[in-house]
Amino acid sequence: MEYIPKPIEALALELGRLPSIGPKSAMRLAYYIAVMDKEAAKTLSEAIYNANMKIRKCSVCGNMADDEKCFVCRDDRRDRSVICVVSKPKDIVAIEKTHEYNGVYHVLGGSISPVMGIGPDDIDIKGLLKRLDGVDEVILATNTDVEGEATASYIFRLINKKVKTVTRIAHGVPVGGNLEYTDEVTIIKALENRTSL
Amino acid sequence: MEYIPKPIEALALELGRLPSIGPKSAMRLAYYIAVMDKEAAKTLSEAIYNANMKIRKCSVCGNMADDEKCFVCRDDRRDRSVICVVSKPKDIVAIEKTHEYNGVYHVLGGSISPVMGIGPDDIDIKGLLKRLDGVDEVILATNTDVEGEATASYIFRLINKKVKTVTRIAHGVPVGGNLEYTDEVTIIKALENRTSL
Repeated sequence: MEYIPKPIEALALELGRLPSIGPKSAMRLAYYIAVMDKEAAKTLSEAIYNANMKIRKCSVCGNMADDEKCFVCRDDRRDRSVICVVSKPKDIVAIEKTHEYNGVYHVLGGSISPVMGIGPDDIDIKGLLKRLDGVDEVILATNTDVEGEATASYIFRLINKKVKTVTRIAHGVPVGGNLEYTDEVTIIKALENRTSL
Repeated sequence: MEYIPKPIEALALELGRLPSIGPKSAMRLAYYIAVMDKEAAKTLSEAIYNANMKIRKCSVCGNMADDEKCFVCRDDRRDRSVICVVSKPKDIVAIEKTHEYNGVYHVLGGSISPVMGIGPDDIDIKGLLKRLDGVDEVILATNTDVEGEATASYIFRLINKKVKTVTRIAHGVPVGGNLEYTDEVTIIKALENRTSL
């Protein structure tokens, strides 16, 4: 469109490639960025460059890190006899926010999904197998969707005899949840896994 | 939060300053950008820098331009005897998309809004007054909200005797609009401005 200045159009195109930013939002943001404070625009531009260039995989667990090891693997106080297996680095953030977990992690980098063509070799199961020495418990904290369940049961069968305890995060009605709006499968799981008071 | 790598946290902070991007979206985007293709991240970073640095105000009308004059003021085929007054550069894009207008524009850079502390001197009315020689018609195309109406009537009183014709864009029910869901003031305007068939 000739009536939009080229640099703005170019920026809108790039912004539109980001998830959850549609063409209209992208154009609105591009116009906003075009006239924003020069210093702020420079900071934003550099922040994008830095975030992309400085982030690497933790050499131990696969979490995102700004150094050779991530903040968990750098921390001597963490209990290395418990490994919590997750799909994505953001899952670690969700668990860390609880301040209830003191073990270490292993990031698979995805879930097994035949539909998407992702097999066991496409996620980092091998890395997990190499870390099992001296580990007492592996907590399988992949998502509770079909792919996450498949991944958890695949890994369970693989490591069951190599580790003392292999656990899976509990299914149930979320805290603050409403039974009326909870799906049947979740209710069945919540009943199965009921605990005595 | 120590469990989010610093470069990602820094980027999320900057993204969160943009309009319509909340803290959660900002964090999701930051994680996405952190692991996206290096070349794509560089392109995005540069697009932001370029859009901000290369864009300036058209020296004639105040539209956004990537040169001294904007694409309208550069175009010899545009009718310079008609000036359409708008609040923001994006309003020009909206009008240009219709392909129905062949005059030139004047961008005020805002609307008069006592509530926000924006007076007549804070928007570019002076620039408009300087451009009235040889102009047959000024179309007041500020928004149809309170501020836009106030701005239009202020300018009308100021230039009424200096220009042959001063017009205001029509109020009415939008095309495809539903009377049931149209507010009363719009319906009153639509009735007042009814045209014979």
